[in-house]
Amino acid sequence: MFSGAQISLYPMADCFVGVILGALGALDPYRDRLRIETDDISTLLVGPPEVLFPAMRDLFVAAARGGKHCVLSATISRGCPGEPDHPICRSDALGGPVRPLGPRKDAAIAAVRGAALAGQPAAAQFSLYVMGTEDHMDEIYGCIDFLKQSGVYERSKHFCTKLRADAGAIFSALDEAFCRFGPGAGHVTLDVTVSANSPSAV
Amino acid sequence: MFSGAQISLYPMADCFVGVILGALGALDPYRDRLRIETDDISTLLVGPPEVLFPAMRDLFVAAARGGKHCVLSATISRGCPGEPDHPICRSDALGGPVRPLGPRKDAAIAAVRGAALAGQPAAAQFSLYVMGTEDHMDEIYGCIDFLKQSGVYERSKHFCTKLRADAGAIFSALDEAFCRFGPGAGHVTLDVTVSANSPSAV
Repeated sequence: MFSGAQISLYPMADCFVGVILGALGALDPYRDRLRIETDDISTLLVGPPEVLFPAMRDLFVAAARGGKHCVLSATISRGCPGEPDHPICRSDALGGPVRPLGPRKDAAIAAVRGAALAGQPAAAQFSLYVMGTEDHMDEIYGCIDFLKQSGVYERSKHFCTKLRADAGAIFSALDEAFCRFGPGAGHVTLDVTVSANSPSAV
Repeated sequence: MFSGAQISLYPMADCFVGVILGALGALDPYRDRLRIETDDISTLLVGPPEVLFPAMRDLFVAAARGGKHCVLSATISRGCPGEPDHPICRSDALGGPVRPLGPRKDAAIAAVRGAALAGQPAAAQFSLYVMGTEDHMDEIYGCIDFLKQSGVYERSKHFCTKLRADAGAIFSALDEAFCRFGPGAGHVTLDVTVSANSPSAV
């Protein structure tokens, strides 16, 4: 199954190019397991969820560490029928039969509660989209219910759910939402915003 | 039908707060037709497409005009079964029977080609998501085909389509993608990034 993300990093600072270039080293431990391409709008990461989410987390934390207000925006996708399969995407986190929602929620909650801390406070919001099925709202409601019990939930907003926690827990929650909700072989996407050091944060 | 957007403006400059506050006046002509709420991650705009897309365009152009690298990121949604209907969202652009793809593409192309210019060059990329149907890829391919003929298409990327044009044409293309593809009463979302003044632009 093809999986990956288009990600963009927005440091709200005159030195934004330096902040971005300075953070890119955080991707080095993952480079051999990702296909990476950059243009003027975003960087494509193609790879399995087990690599994508830790890579995005480490990039975001590296950019935020200097204290500038930084946002990571990401379009994350798996199983799009229009994308060719690719061996680099092989994953143990996807596929297999769809289990009942209850055990999936429990597994997701346990994963987020056990996630390693990154030492970087963050806020985030995201939307989960499940396509090609008529029961997509059941999966979305199941995911929201998991988030409410995960320890990272802040509030529901129109069109998305807002989180506030350590960046380690937030990226774990995004990973769990992506892998455990929607059919294992289905077309599932996330529309993600993660923010650090905002002067507006309450 | 409930419709709206969560939008964020990212000026890559030390004076990002001033750029954002200075651009907000561009929303004034639309305020009586939108519900607006802001927190530390995004601003919610609730209203019909006829108001949403011009309001986002004018806000983006106002922020970009000073020459700083600025990005507008937006999650745009209509027809989510979990959202209550609201009178402010009443629209002539949505609903009605689904017509064949051909005439819808033709109408979308004509609208973008006739869009008023904003005088601001921009690049953009977005994904169209159609939920609750098993034929969502037909609508997505139809939309990509419209974009290729609209004059704003730059290239296809994994997970999204990239545009480059005057901001007036770009926001018109986003509006057309949102209103004309997917069932009129269906759950349709866009994941949008619009960028101006990037030092990486080719």
